[in-house]
Amino acid sequence: MRATRAVQKILAGYEGETPGVKGKLRQMLMTGKLGGTGKMVILPVDQGFEHGPARSFAPNPAAYDPHYHYQLAIDAGLNAFAAPLGMLEAGADTFSGQIPTILKANSANSLMSSSAGKNQAVTASVDDALRLGCAAIGFTIYPGSDMALDMFEEISAMREEAAAKGVATVIWSYPRGEALTKDGETAIDIAAYAAQIAALLGAHVIKIKLSTDHLELKEAKKVYEDEKIDISTQAARVAHCMQAAFNGRRLVVFSGGAKKGENSVYDDARAIRDGGGNGSIIGRNTFQRPREEALKMLGRIIDIYKGRD
Amino acid sequence: MRATRAVQKILAGYEGETPGVKGKLRQMLMTGKLGGTGKMVILPVDQGFEHGPARSFAPNPAAYDPHYHYQLAIDAGLNAFAAPLGMLEAGADTFSGQIPTILKANSANSLMSSSAGKNQAVTASVDDALRLGCAAIGFTIYPGSDMALDMFEEISAMREEAAAKGVATVIWSYPRGEALTKDGETAIDIAAYAAQIAALLGAHVIKIKLSTDHLELKEAKKVYEDEKIDISTQAARVAHCMQAAFNGRRLVVFSGGAKKGENSVYDDARAIRDGGGNGSIIGRNTFQRPREEALKMLGRIIDIYKGRD
Amino acid sequence: MRATRAVQKILAGYEGETPGVKGKLRQMLMTGKLGGTGKMVILPVDQGFEHGPARSFAPNPAAYDPHYHYQLAIDAGLNAFAAPLGMLEAGADTFSGQIPTILKANSANSLMSSSAGKNQAVTASVDDALRLGCAAIGFTIYPGSDMALDMFEEISAMREEAAAKGVATVIWSYPRGEALTKDGETAIDIAAYAAQIAALLGAHVIKIKLSTDHLELKEAKKVYEDEKIDISTQAARVAHCMQAAFNGRRLVVFSGGAKKGENSVYDDARAIRDGGGNGSIIGRNTFQRPREEALKMLGRIIDIYKGRD
Amino acid sequence: MRATRAVQKILAGYEGETPGVKGKLRQMLMTGKLGGTGKMVILPVDQGFEHGPARSFAPNPAAYDPHYHYQLAIDAGLNAFAAPLGMLEAGADTFSGQIPTILKANSANSLMSSSAGKNQAVTASVDDALRLGCAAIGFTIYPGSDMALDMFEEISAMREEAAAKGVATVIWSYPRGEALTKDGETAIDIAAYAAQIAALLGAHVIKIKLSTDHLELKEAKKVYEDEKIDISTQAARVAHCMQAAFNGRRLVVFSGGAKKGENSVYDDARAIRDGGGNGSIIGRNTFQRPREEALKMLGRIIDIYKGRD
Amino acid sequence: MRATRAVQKILAGYEGETPGVKGKLRQMLMTGKLGGTGKMVILPVDQGFEHGPARSFAPNPAAYDPHYHYQLAIDAGLNAFAAPLGMLEAGADTFSGQIPTILKANSANSLMSSSAGKNQAVTASVDDALRLGCAAIGFTIYPGSDMALDMFEEISAMREEAAAKGVATVIWSYPRGEALTKDGETAIDIAAYAAQIAALLGAHVIKIKLSTDHLELKEAKKVYEDEKIDISTQAARVAHCMQAAFNGRRLVVFSGGAKKGENSVYDDARAIRDGGGNGSIIGRNTFQRPREEALKMLGRIIDIYKGRD
Repeated sequence: MRATRAVQKILAGYEGETPGVKGKLRQMLMTGKLGGTGKMVILPVDQGFEHGPARSFAPNPAAYDPHYHYQLAIDAGLNAFAAPLGMLEAGADTFSGQIPTILKANSANSLMSSSAGKNQAVTASVDDALRLGCAAIGFTIYPGSDMALDMFEEISAMREEAAAKGVATVIWSYPRGEALTKDGETAIDIAAYAAQIAALLGAHVIKIKLSTDHLELKEAKKVYEDEKIDISTQAARVAHCMQAAFNGRRLVVFSGGAKKGENSVYDDARAIRDGGGNGSIIGRNTFQRPREEALKMLGRIIDIYKGRD
Repeated sequence: MRATRAVQKILAGYEGETPGVKGKLRQMLMTGKLGGTGKMVILPVDQGFEHGPARSFAPNPAAYDPHYHYQLAIDAGLNAFAAPLGMLEAGADTFSGQIPTILKANSANSLMSSSAGKNQAVTASVDDALRLGCAAIGFTIYPGSDMALDMFEEISAMREEAAAKGVATVIWSYPRGEALTKDGETAIDIAAYAAQIAALLGAHVIKIKLSTDHLELKEAKKVYEDEKIDISTQAARVAHCMQAAFNGRRLVVFSGGAKKGENSVYDDARAIRDGGGNGSIIGRNTFQRPREEALKMLGRIIDIYKGRD
Repeated sequence: MRATRAVQKILAGYEGETPGVKGKLRQMLMTGKLGGTGKMVILPVDQGFEHGPARSFAPNPAAYDPHYHYQLAIDAGLNAFAAPLGMLEAGADTFSGQIPTILKANSANSLMSSSAGKNQAVTASVDDALRLGCAAIGFTIYPGSDMALDMFEEISAMREEAAAKGVATVIWSYPRGEALTKDGETAIDIAAYAAQIAALLGAHVIKIKLSTDHLELKEAKKVYEDEKIDISTQAARVAHCMQAAFNGRRLVVFSGGAKKGENSVYDDARAIRDGGGNGSIIGRNTFQRPREEALKMLGRIIDIYKGRD
Repeated sequence: MRATRAVQKILAGYEGETPGVKGKLRQMLMTGKLGGTGKMVILPVDQGFEHGPARSFAPNPAAYDPHYHYQLAIDAGLNAFAAPLGMLEAGADTFSGQIPTILKANSANSLMSSSAGKNQAVTASVDDALRLGCAAIGFTIYPGSDMALDMFEEISAMREEAAAKGVATVIWSYPRGEALTKDGETAIDIAAYAAQIAALLGAHVIKIKLSTDHLELKEAKKVYEDEKIDISTQAARVAHCMQAAFNGRRLVVFSGGAKKGENSVYDDARAIRDGGGNGSIIGRNTFQRPREEALKMLGRIIDIYKGRD
Repeated sequence: MRATRAVQKILAGYEGETPGVKGKLRQMLMTGKLGGTGKMVILPVDQGFEHGPARSFAPNPAAYDPHYHYQLAIDAGLNAFAAPLGMLEAGADTFSGQIPTILKANSANSLMSSSAGKNQAVTASVDDALRLGCAAIGFTIYPGSDMALDMFEEISAMREEAAAKGVATVIWSYPRGEALTKDGETAIDIAAYAAQIAALLGAHVIKIKLSTDHLELKEAKKVYEDEKIDISTQAARVAHCMQAAFNGRRLVVFSGGAKKGENSVYDDARAIRDGGGNGSIIGRNTFQRPREEALKMLGRIIDIYKGRD
């Protein structure tokens, strides 16, 4: 399928990238109900690793089955489905070719003491992604952690290999760790910084969290105030994060965090749209709801990105 | 283009180096308005990584866009443009061949707690530099940090590979860390020491900061006083740092740090010139100003190096 | 230096290529008196290997010295100088950065019996090209030889490595061998076929010989006649070869063979120009003449490509 | 040049070593004014790394230039010149073949806090030594440091590679660190221990410091007293250290430390000679003096080793 | 020892070569009675492999012993001794450091039928040369053989490795094989061609045979006659071969072949000297004579190169 102008314009920002990588980005951007709009909704299911299975799937037990998520993402007309190795493998044959997949290549868990530091384990390889026919690898970094430099080095090397082999890279840039307060993890200055770091590391798609108007770093606070940077609304904060992603030359999708009320999810999507973000990556808010409810919600989110809501 | 005598003399100091590396040094020295003079002005843009995007670019929001910096360096007639992987890639095709590029291959950030130590992450490879057609890799070391030995080992290995493949090495030698006071970071004894370490590690171009007349180390202080080493003016301190760079056999460029008044920037350039330094590496003082103002300032700096101001 | 529109258009044909390779093509296209026109004149000096030193250089004994050729190419304002390893090394330092070089990475010789088959030895590596700072590797294939498949495999592997490391590939596609008559070596159907094979192997620049209106292959002859393909003039045949080079999406330079009369050389250049070819690769016709005469001839060829003659 | 009997006898101690390594030892032993005597004087210039440039070179500013040291070692008729990578490279071509060189392959500096531990960074490779045509690599170990085991492992691996490739290994065995008092660093029991460790690690040449009659380790002190080991004079202590170096089967050179009075330097040399040591490695005491004075001093040291003083 | 001007001028021709390789060339050029003159006499002893032991050594049975040859080369004051692995190893310890050695890394023998083709076996590695402390590897190619392309590829790869590790390369360029008549093997056009091929392959020292005034190749014959190339005397033919070796930028030594009369040997040396050749590589004519006679002959050859005879 020929890329639309909107998609062509986005891809033109990836200068000097291999045709393989650009083809994978194009595949994600041209898939699903938002195909061709330049917007994306991605279903990520790595919470079983991060929070444990019951916390993740008990509210909707059908979700214990990996096939459930593949089918949900396909039926909802999403752009891609992201998960760790084992979950992707569990449906790799049944759903092959039906939706682009993102192999989450490192993973955290809730069974680590604070002394272990904020870090993740590399749990899959670029070759795994090739073998499974994935469109991209996904990798989490923790700016703010004392382990951050190690994580940056891991994804730098992995991205180099992936790009050479025609696989795109999605970086989950999630601030946390010794350098940050709890509020700081979602502060707007930190969110924009997280987007910038991912872009500089060479991410093709950047995943960050929606932010608050809190300003964490003293030196940054001064600049935001002096330069009168508008961070008063979520849409304004999204727009600022897009600036931090090479003035919009990189795809950025936003996550909303823990399950919350429907309207809140729709408000998030409208803010992302209005701020010029590229879409949502939305997990618990969908798969922890009953399937029909989730499909309805995802349908409405897609309508929002299409400007119909 | 045939190298001028000034450039030939500089290159003769790089004994036993591969023709590939010498060709890259020649390329940087023969480019731009200072081409052929043996002087260089380089634009480095890694502050988005180091200080975050808003602190770096909000004063001049056009600078959020990587293309802005490429174009600024080209239009100002500079010798080279240095940036991390993601930023170089974002303009790799549009600006290919218009200005030599330096791939900043490791990066720090402001989101690290003091317990993490002073260190940087290796975020690009020599093969990245080759793929992107870069003239050099850039690498920061922190003499004074407890992590310094690790950083020295990283750049030693990377330099060996780069030189074999015809890529030059620029070392940012920035003292900081557990062994130094805040004043010590810019003390003249420390600055000269930083230049010496970079030269001994095999740097082809050395980047250090301009220094103060503070003397940090007790043993050094005694020598400076006994030997009556002139450190009374910035030009004298630049001249002393050139001694420390193998008596001028290595190219040394100086950075001026945070944004400051115009006259101060020009005074810096005159001191570098009068002390026999090879030029300026000047980031925030240019890209945080409006483009026209920055171009005017860079034009005047170039005039200073040409001896016209 | 910013690429001209003509050069930008050519480079746009190299879709998906690394910035490093495109930078090297740009470097060759933007160098010399034809810089920016999209036309090229290249000096190749591998005849000492192929025909022996006396046959190559005795008519102009100054040409025994490798420096002679570097200087001739520079003084004539050519786009590049191509030679085997030993010859490039002999001037690698003196002429570094003055003209793009092409490392001829395989070589034939006239001391092989017919039983040896038509083949060449690989006599340099991609790492040699990097070490010497070359813009490209050059490689000869012999379509028509029983050894052709081996040669195709060699250059396929070498091209892959070169492109990943930012080095361009020039293929000398010279039909000869068991499958061809003597007339067939320069037949137009064979010349076009040779251009096509080089393009399909991934050559960035293709070097073929000017052809005659002979048609070698029976099946091809029928098509040329049925389709009334115009092969009546040299310009028409050049135009046909450009079609075979992906309808002009690949750079093609033409060689004229053994030394001949001046007017004949100029006629060749006009035909190449009028047929839309990208230029000449011209060795013996220049370096076998006295230097002043050669410079005058090259000057006039350049004028022809500029449309002034 | 045929090795003298004195040198042959020394080399016979290196049983089972490769001819390449023995050739390099012979080269050092047969070079300079002491060539053939079995004695050596080596100029080491790594103090710029270890103490900083001003502390090292300001007393004699000509010494900022790497060429100065090469020339001093050559003109004084020394056996070898030892320095880190950058300094050797800066004269690699000019002085090639005029004096054997030792590539100092790890380096310490004075900008490390006590929390960093006593350690050095590996700053050059065996391949660097081969490329630069060095006779040996030099490597410092710190017996007594908590990092000592790491350093032993590094040099063990490097020595293995160097020996296989015909490069000799010189170990600077310098006790310091958590296990030692300040006095202990130069205690005779520790000095002998340091020589023994270097010999057991496979050093071809051992560099230790001259020692005092202090005894650091309680268990050792008892033995020295019970066995009435003579440590009353410097010559006796040198003789004891030679015992510790496989009863003289390994070359041991002694360093004298910081700049001091001339007579003290001569006394040291006489003690080394009388104790059967193989010579001096003498840096600051020469290059911190004016050249003529240094040459005179080195001449007299050489006379001492020749038994004329 | 400082290189003489004559030697410095020769070394300057090896542009872009590593200091290690240049140091090895300097070592050979500065050794022996011809040290510093730019002339060389080398003793090669690979005839035991090539012709068998009795044919090689029976005329002077002392020569069965490898030590004999080492000692002969040393006592005669030659520049280097070349032999296959086993012979070098047999004296590697005894003679280490007394004379530069060249490890002959491939070898032919007389026990091959004509159907085997003209080829040699690779019988040693660059690492062997390093282990044995050799100054160079030696490698034979057979231009004219149907196996020549394979041999060129072998030495190309080996030379690349050797140069990176600081070992020089000597190519024995000996025309023979299917493409040549017996007379052609020593024809002047073929000798010059052999020198050219070795130079283009990157040889640092070229070894060819003295030639006759026979012209083998029809196309070449025409050029020699048309251009009136002087091949009437041996000196003229030597001079022509030096042209073919990059106009004298590469060292060329000449061999005289089978044992012959003394005067004939002296005449050869005078012709080499008068033609500007760099010296002789002379095996059977020395070691097949009694030692005293050989020493006398070598002494006189050295006198000839010194211009005293």
